[in-house]
Parts: sequence; structure tokens; C-alpha cells
Amino acid sequence: MSSGALENLVVLDLTRVLAGPYCTMLLADMGAEVIKIEIPQGGDDTRAYPPFRKNRDGEQESLYFANINRNKKGITLNLKSEEGKEIFRRLVKKADIVVENYRPGVMDKLGLGYDALKEINPRLIYGSVSGFGNTGPYRLRPGYDILAQAMGGLMAITGAAGGPPTRVGSAIGDLLGGLHLTIGLLAAVNARNLTGVGQRVDISLMDAVIAATENTAIKYLESGTIPPRMGNRYAAVSPYDAFQVKDGKIIIAAGNQHLYEKLCTEILHRPDMITDPRFTDMPGRLKNQDAIQEVIESTLADKTMEEAVELVLSKGIPAGPIYDISQILQDPQVKEREMFVEMEHPTLGPITVNGCAVKLSETMPGVRTPAPALGQDDFEILHKYCGLAQEEVESLREQKVI
Amino acid sequence: MSSGALENLVVLDLTRVLAGPYCTMLLADMGAEVIKIEIPQGGDDTRAYPPFRKNRDGEQESLYFANINRNKKGITLNLKSEEGKEIFRRLVKKADIVVENYRPGVMDKLGLGYDALKEINPRLIYGSVSGFGNTGPYRLRPGYDILAQAMGGLMAITGAAGGPPTRVGSAIGDLLGGLHLTIGLLAAVNARNLTGVGQRVDISLMDAVIAATENTAIKYLESGTIPPRMGNRYAAVSPYDAFQVKDGKIIIAAGNQHLYEKLCTEILHRPDMITDPRFTDMPGRLKNQDAIQEVIESTLADKTMEEAVELVLSKGIPAGPIYDISQILQDPQVKEREMFVEMEHPTLGPITVNGCAVKLSETMPGVRTPAPALGQDDFEILHKYCGLAQEEVESLREQKVI
Repeated sequence: MSSGALENLVVLDLTRVLAGPYCTMLLADMGAEVIKIEIPQGGDDTRAYPPFRKNRDGEQESLYFANINRNKKGITLNLKSEEGKEIFRRLVKKADIVVENYRPGVMDKLGLGYDALKEINPRLIYGSVSGFGNTGPYRLRPGYDILAQAMGGLMAITGAAGGPPTRVGSAIGDLLGGLHLTIGLLAAVNARNLTGVGQRVDISLMDAVIAATENTAIKYLESGTIPPRMGNRYAAVSPYDAFQVKDGKIIIAAGNQHLYEKLCTEILHRPDMITDPRFTDMPGRLKNQDAIQEVIESTLADKTMEEAVELVLSKGIPAGPIYDISQILQDPQVKEREMFVEMEHPTLGPITVNGCAVKLSETMPGVRTPAPALGQDDFEILHKYCGLAQEEVESLREQKVI
Repeated sequence: MSSGALENLVVLDLTRVLAGPYCTMLLADMGAEVIKIEIPQGGDDTRAYPPFRKNRDGEQESLYFANINRNKKGITLNLKSEEGKEIFRRLVKKADIVVENYRPGVMDKLGLGYDALKEINPRLIYGSVSGFGNTGPYRLRPGYDILAQAMGGLMAITGAAGGPPTRVGSAIGDLLGGLHLTIGLLAAVNARNLTGVGQRVDISLMDAVIAATENTAIKYLESGTIPPRMGNRYAAVSPYDAFQVKDGKIIIAAGNQHLYEKLCTEILHRPDMITDPRFTDMPGRLKNQDAIQEVIESTLADKTMEEAVELVLSKGIPAGPIYDISQILQDPQVKEREMFVEMEHPTLGPITVNGCAVKLSETMPGVRTPAPALGQDDFEILHKYCGLAQEEVESLREQKVI
């Protein structure tokens, strides 16, 4: 098997910006035929998002779009026109999956909501991702990543102790939404093999972020105390933090009793800290983190980051550097794992895109084709799935249906 | 269909702590029969993780464990004993999926690595999640969430402008690993329907975090500048930030030209800011964020958070509060979406656990059964899948195999 774990799946992709396109990128990386459907005028908003590069036609072209839409085919379709709707319905008959990230209700208003589409194709799996999901009082509110991070509770637990709530530096709400949508779609594919019918997958960015706060609610409900921001520390484990050494900070994560004792004897040369009543168990170490930190930092004060990491690791204790992106790109592990891939783009030239973090031994996801130019596959797709001839496609273009 | 999208799948779950158990929680929530296999002495480490509650037997019992292991069955098995290995191999014959999060090589040393297990069951899908994955120079390094956050680049982009790299306040590296593992396993299930054979899914926490930095590498490679930490701001869009009002901060996300113009006319009453050359396009607004922030904050200075959110939302501009967990638990949207579920636990009594963020219309994931007591399903599972009689199970217990 070569072309991917999902090579049997045809996906109609109406998504724009990030959460939805991230999901369909994963599906495409794993071999699904993803047909990105864009509005004829301008297409996906992110075609106008930075970073840009002056392309071979001398125009500013988005690398943001190029990264997240590789491996997808691209067609244009005006879903507000009757002809556009009709073509979409014909595509739906042949598709396994429709994915969209419009605000709830938009597809229904177009007459293309799940209830209408499942009449055309009962095997269809219909996935949507929106700010707050398709049910509940906020369903029609506009949703953005930062709102999900704020209302989902991730900002409230991220940041320096005593400092303000802090947004995660990437659009993690969108990505979590896209990951949950991918899981829901693939689970629905499995269910369809059992029942013969499709279903609807409904993902909310806020839900996905709430899930990513893991046991914050359980801690609060049990203690009555709102878990505070605590910088790089973790409420359940200590020592487990960033520690200052000669030229910067490194991470040491002595996650259990065994690792703590090893740290005391082999790095700190302070076996007395094993039996010191302040530190004998995890609750004690959590309460007395500052004291442990002082000993660690004074012991490693004359070591560079590299030396300190090497020393601690050599004793089998988890440690590592805090990397910025330039260091990640140079790292031998990252290269071996192919987490960045160079490819040739027809107008941008050579570009680097993110690799896929899902590694499958027999059907390895890969970066095969560059992101589509607007409408580049109009003829191929409309011919393949709707049987249209070249003249018919041209006529649709003249009518601005595509 | 009622019991879930994955009701046909039998999962042998050797995972401990968070990344692996998060994956198998999702599989179990969606109806898979997840058989959690623990060491007979003490079981999963997280049975000793806080938060705790004094249970009906008067002992401290972990709510951490109870949250993340609901819906799973539990057996004990000593995989270091020959009898334990033999029972595991008999279970593998009947299983669809094995999941583990040992350090790479541990299962091979036990004679239970993927190469050995696929001989027993070629349809087996074998999933692993580890700090750095199963290949590359760091494969044998110990992995922890905080190391993945640090080495995967999420810490470097999270935090206040000018402040230190900041860990996301939950174990987001573990969760991202668990989500990617779930996607890989479900993709492999689809592939198995095409080919008849299983394969290996290999997830690295560091890879999963790198993927979650989205286009950080692309920005760096194109500009040569390492993307800085920028508090709650976002490099691609402005105004899109937390803004101070009378009694706290709220989020406003005017993500495109249309929303910006609406904000200027309907909230700020400053139509001149639309044509002001500093703010006419997104690059300009990104460069002059402080000036826009000043106007927004002075306009909303006399509004409470609730009033300000309501006002901005009423004009169709995305806005919302920054919630802590107590507010999330009270929120009507969160209740409607069932993101927290109350259940009865046999020893802990009534507890609240996280709901599932994957909403499937026909096979809704749900919380059905409490996390297992250590070894509670030994007889049921060993009888069902290995045909053992009660005496045989008792004899295994006496031999400390279970």
C-alpha cells in the first residue's frame, strides 16, 4: 500500500482559515482525496495572510496558505448560485465526507445543510467545526481561536505566577478543533462500516480547549480553589520546571520518587534531601519547590545549558533545552522525524512546510503536491465526478459559477 | 446504533499516566472496548496522583485516575512473567489494537514488540506514544510533557512580550500526543479495511508539539527573525487581543477588514480610523497595535466586562470574557454541550469528570462506567478472551501473574 491510509476517502472541503483546513490537511497527508472548494473571488481568506513571498509572477503570495493546504486539490464554486448548488449536490453523491467551518446555520440557509445532504447521500459523513458548536445558546456567536482559548480556560491557567492570563503563542484552539474534528470523522468512517450510514460530527473550539485543560475542573471542584497560573511549574509533580544555569534555562523533570532520589544522589550530591522531611514525598516537594530549585540552580550554576542537559540526561534523569524555532530546525531528531519538508511550489519556488506528526509504518503520511492555485482542478474534478465536458466547465466559468 | 462509533474495536491498553490514557479515553468514550492492563502491584502511577478524595473505605483515592480512565475495563498482568506474556499473547490474538507509552525498546525487550505481535495477529494495529518517537537519536531519551513543550517550541512562543518562555498551563504536549495517536489508530483501522493487515502507529510528543506551533517555522525561515513572544497578541491579525475594561480584561477579535471597520464605526465611533493611513490594512494595524488598543480601552473604560462583551457582540464583532474554571463550570453553553458529566463512582461516590469534545450525532460519545478498580475485570476478560475458568484465574492471582 502506498498512497495512504485514507486513500479510499473523497472529502469535499469547504473550510477556510485554520481549524477546518488543519483537519483536511491531516486527511490529505494520510492520502484522502481532499477537494478544497473556494469562492471564485479570492478564495480562502488565508491566501491574503502573511508570511508572503514575491512569487515567480512578481506577486505577493501567501506561505501560510501554501503550508496548510498542500496535498489538496482545488476547485472554485459559487454556492449562492443555483448552478453552484447543483454541482455541489452532484459532488456530494460521490463524496464520503463534507467538512465546513462556517458559522452554524450558514449551510442550512444555502439549502446545503446536513439534513438536505443526507437525503442525497445517506452514507455521507458531515463534519463541522465552529467557535461554540452547533447547539447551545452561543451557537450563532462568531468564534475565533483567541475566544476559545479565553472562554475554554486555557488562558486562565497559562502565564507567570501572579501575572495575567496568557494566550498560547500559536492558534492552539483552532488546532485542537481540527484534531478533534479529524478524530470524529474517522470514528464516523468506522461506524459507517458497521451501519452503512453516515452521521454528523459537530466540533466546538471552546469544547476542544476545555478538554485540553485536562483535570483543572476536577482540581477546582475538589479543593474549591481556582488553580492559579504557575509559570513553568506543574501542580502534580516537582521538581519539574525550568532551571537557570550559566547561560540560560533548562528543563529538568524528575517526575517520580525514583527520579527524585537519583537527582539528589547523582546530580546534587545531597542524599540528605531524600530523607529531609520537607521533601520525602511529592506533596512535600510541591510545597517546598523553591528550596529544591535553589539547590538545583546553585549546583548547575557553572554549567552551560548544553553541559547541564548532558550531565542530567547521562544519569537517566529527564532533561532538555528550551528550543526556539531556529534550534528546532537544526535538531537531528527533528530532521530524522521529517517534521519539516522541502518541496517545490509552482509559483513560490522551493518552500518548507510542516511535516505530519502521525507516523504510520505501512502508509506513511507525506507531502506530495503543493497547495492548489485558485480553481486549478476545476476541470479535472468536475469531469471526474460530474461528467462535465471542457465546454461545460468553460461555460460555468463565464457564468461565474466557478 | 447506540453503544458507540467504535463498538467493534477491542483495545489492549498498556498505557500509563496521561498521553496514552488520554488516547484510550477517547477510544473508550466512542465505544471501543478498552482493556486497561496494569501491573499487579499498585497499577498506573496516576492512582497515586492528586487530586485525592477520602473514599468510602477511608482511603485517599485519586480523582486524576478516575477522570481519565472512565469507560475502561481493568485487568492486572505481570508482563515480566512467562505466564503473563502468554496471556497477553492470547489477548493479542483477539484484539484490534495494542497501545503503549513505554520508552521505545521496552516492549521489544519483553518479547512483545510490534514485530513479535504481528506474527500472532497480522491484523493488529500497534500504537505507541513516547517523548521522541521510535526513531532518531533521541528515541531512548526519557520524555515528559514539559520537555516536549520546551523542545517542540511551544514554550518559546508563549508568554509576555519580553518575558520568559512559558509552559502552557496544562499538559498540552501529552494531550496533543494522545490526540495524534488517536488519529493514527483510526486511520490505520480504515487502512486495515482496505488491505486486511494492521500496522504500527508511532507518535512523538515532541513531533506533536512542533505540529502545534503551526507556521512558526515558515515565518522564521522567510524573515530570518525568530518569532517573539507577544502576550495575547497574534502575529497575523489585529486588533485581536485582551483589552482592559472597568473590572478586568475582555477579548476582542476583529479578524478581518470588515470587522475592523465595524468596530471603528459602531463601537469606537471613530470612522476616521478606517481611512487613517496607519490603519488602512492589516500590516499597518499590526504595526500600530498600541494606538488602536488605546482607543479601544478608553472607549470601553466605563463598561464592566459583561457590559463590554455584550455591547461588542451586539454589533456582530467577536468578543468574549476570559474565563477561569469556576466560570466555565457555570456557563450555559458548557452545560448544553455536556463538557462536564456527573457520575457515581463505587468508592469515590458522586464525581464530576470531563465530557468528550467529539460530538457524533448517531453515536454520541458518553461517560458510561467509572474507572476500574485495580484488576476488577480480571475474571471477565480472561474468561471472555482466553477461556479461563474461575480456578485458573485464582491460580494466576496466587502466582502473582495477575
